[in-house]
Amino acid sequence: MTTVTSRMNVRVGWGDCDPAGIVFFPRYLAFCNEATGALFESIGLPKPLLLRTYDIVGYPVVEVSANFFHPCTFGDDIVIESSVAEWGRSSFRLQHRILKDGELAVDCKEKRVWAARDPERPGGIRARAIPDEIKSLFSRGTA
Amino acid sequence: MTTVTSRMNVRVGWGDCDPAGIVFFPRYLAFCNEATGALFESIGLPKPLLLRTYDIVGYPVVEVSANFFHPCTFGDDIVIESSVAEWGRSSFRLQHRILKDGELAVDCKEKRVWAARDPERPGGIRARAIPDEIKSLFSRGTA
Amino acid sequence: MTTVTSRMNVRVGWGDCDPAGIVFFPRYLAFCNEATGALFESIGLPKPLLLRTYDIVGYPVVEVSANFFHPCTFGDDIVIESSVAEWGRSSFRLQHRILKDGELAVDCKEKRVWAARDPERPGGIRARAIPDEIKSLFSRGTA
Amino acid sequence: MTTVTSRMNVRVGWGDCDPAGIVFFPRYLAFCNEATGALFESIGLPKPLLLRTYDIVGYPVVEVSANFFHPCTFGDDIVIESSVAEWGRSSFRLQHRILKDGELAVDCKEKRVWAARDPERPGGIRARAIPDEIKSLFSRGTA
Repeated sequence: MTTVTSRMNVRVGWGDCDPAGIVFFPRYLAFCNEATGALFESIGLPKPLLLRTYDIVGYPVVEVSANFFHPCTFGDDIVIESSVAEWGRSSFRLQHRILKDGELAVDCKEKRVWAARDPERPGGIRARAIPDEIKSLFSRGTA
Repeated sequence: MTTVTSRMNVRVGWGDCDPAGIVFFPRYLAFCNEATGALFESIGLPKPLLLRTYDIVGYPVVEVSANFFHPCTFGDDIVIESSVAEWGRSSFRLQHRILKDGELAVDCKEKRVWAARDPERPGGIRARAIPDEIKSLFSRGTA
Repeated sequence: MTTVTSRMNVRVGWGDCDPAGIVFFPRYLAFCNEATGALFESIGLPKPLLLRTYDIVGYPVVEVSANFFHPCTFGDDIVIESSVAEWGRSSFRLQHRILKDGELAVDCKEKRVWAARDPERPGGIRARAIPDEIKSLFSRGTA
Repeated sequence: MTTVTSRMNVRVGWGDCDPAGIVFFPRYLAFCNEATGALFESIGLPKPLLLRTYDIVGYPVVEVSANFFHPCTFGDDIVIESSVAEWGRSSFRLQHRILKDGELAVDCKEKRVWAARDPERPGGIRARAIPDEIKSLFSRGTA
């Protein structure tokens, strides 16, 4: 078994950087959020289709951790490699590696939940079991 | 010895929220970044003064982790309680607690470095020892 | 007749500023967007209540223009004065003045529409007539 | 004489959209800001090189206006066509057209100034004459 890994290219923008001239760190996490979308898209499920097909509102983050090894700046071309590290019943863990010139600049881990509208609380959301077909789309059997 | 804790109020904006109607999680980390500024301001060092006085470019984050317990939405009034959890030679650890209606909504930990321009690499930055007076401003002796 | 003017205070954050050390200009427009919310709140309709009460999805901007006279930077305390300049059937024009130390730093004009879900296009939105009571809440008669 | 037009592709992200499910309008202006960078890059001057070569801090916006014709949402692939509409001595006007499925979704005009550090005010910036070679790089003679 191998696991799907997606690669998303990002050009760091002027508006992503702060007065120290480096990426304002929450922007890295916004990049990783879009990289999660790119990962689902790589298995044929761009986010609008994913939400419609499975009647969910999203996969909100419940835990995140990141290490920042090398600063990036405007004009930098970075690559974000993303994969699912672990599947739970209604949650899953992701790993993102942000590379600059082939070197690891940022390492980011997320735990997300599969979230649907809560029929009992208007405006509320609640976790739901992740469909098996989602999990299997992320595995490429080698048997 | 006690440690300084600052409290910053944030009104969650429409532009802080995503299509699921909840705060886009990187925005919480942007809030915590400003809360770090509020913490320094509470000891008499608003960021512009801090940078000038100590000739640093900032205190960039090298590690961050956060847990998201309850979603917040636009119009919510939240409070961010911030304090320094640990001092190192050139780095320090912070703890932020985001409260909504008195309940813990988000818990965030950061490790930051005291960073100055690197005289040997134009545009580069490097860690520097944190002045003792900074550390002592954060402690209120009870002797 | 006079018109309601709201005042919103904003502390410019580190993350609002760019590598030139000044506010990244789209952030001013994000501030003005929240100031529009503050204006409605000043007549007793914070945005969550406004959307629920009138069954709208928001008041999206269809035109915006802004002049930037003086740059602001992190740590600056600015004030945004907002008012409705003109009411149309399903649209309205707003005026925002961003003041720094009492001087006009940014002037911003928005045209917004009163927008509801379109029952005929899932996910679509369409303009709707602005209720008269909204318009009258913004006017303070002087008989 | 013709004028250089650049084309930049943007995938609209989840984090670019608001609770109404459409792009939060200041994000369009952030896209246009990066599109200005792409325009300069198309004449061989990516922003880091531009700033170094001409010793400027940037080309801050002094006026902006935009019309929003069709809403975009997460997952949309948009194209931004950018060109210089007019050159002044120390300022220039840009035109950005954001296309979705070939249709004009947003039209944005900016006036920017060529800005350098002000040697007389630490931290201040001031307009400077735009070098002729910049202007001529944007024109492709057809003689």
